[in-house]
Amino acid sequence: MMVLITYDVNTSSDGGQRRLRHVAKTCENYGQRVQNSVFECLVDPQQFKELQLKLEKIIDPSVDSLRYYQLGAKWKRKVEHVGAKQGYDVDGLLLI
Amino acid sequence: MMVLITYDVNTSSDGGQRRLRHVAKTCENYGQRVQNSVFECLVDPQQFKELQLKLEKIIDPSVDSLRYYQLGAKWKRKVEHVGAKQGYDVDGLLLI
Repeated sequence: MMVLITYDVNTSSDGGQRRLRHVAKTCENYGQRVQNSVFECLVDPQQFKELQLKLEKIIDPSVDSLRYYQLGAKWKRKVEHVGAKQGYDVDGLLLI
Repeated sequence: MMVLITYDVNTSSDGGQRRLRHVAKTCENYGQRVQNSVFECLVDPQQFKELQLKLEKIIDPSVDSLRYYQLGAKWKRKVEHVGAKQGYDVDGLLLI
């Protein structure tokens, strides 16, 4: 399943910079960074659960947030990119 | 149609802060801000096209980027939010 993860980490709060780095680092192990705070992760349900648990231990839910979007099987047809930093397909091919 | 829009604007480049404000302001006219650089817009195909044209005139494609995700009819079931700044449903109800 393709899951889009977006996050906001309040970097002006205590430990915010550390949490931001930690969230990004954790997402990197599961998918492809497509923008600063946006990752596309091709995961199975077990990996998705595992990733959610990890991320939710890192953030401070009173000031940070995470959003998960399940994009479905035909996700490639539903995504458009404009401008810099074109994302790469997690399968290893350029996403056109 | 529900379209998720995510963007990265390079604020350290010339005019970056202005482009960032302009992109956010434009998205606000079409949908709901759910995170700093993430909007959910319930639009018809004509409005979506119009919004894309406006945004693509604002950004500097050499340093900024936009991504559009068409979430499909059952989008509410596919979104999960954790932590601060709970988004509001564009229909005016809290998204639970």
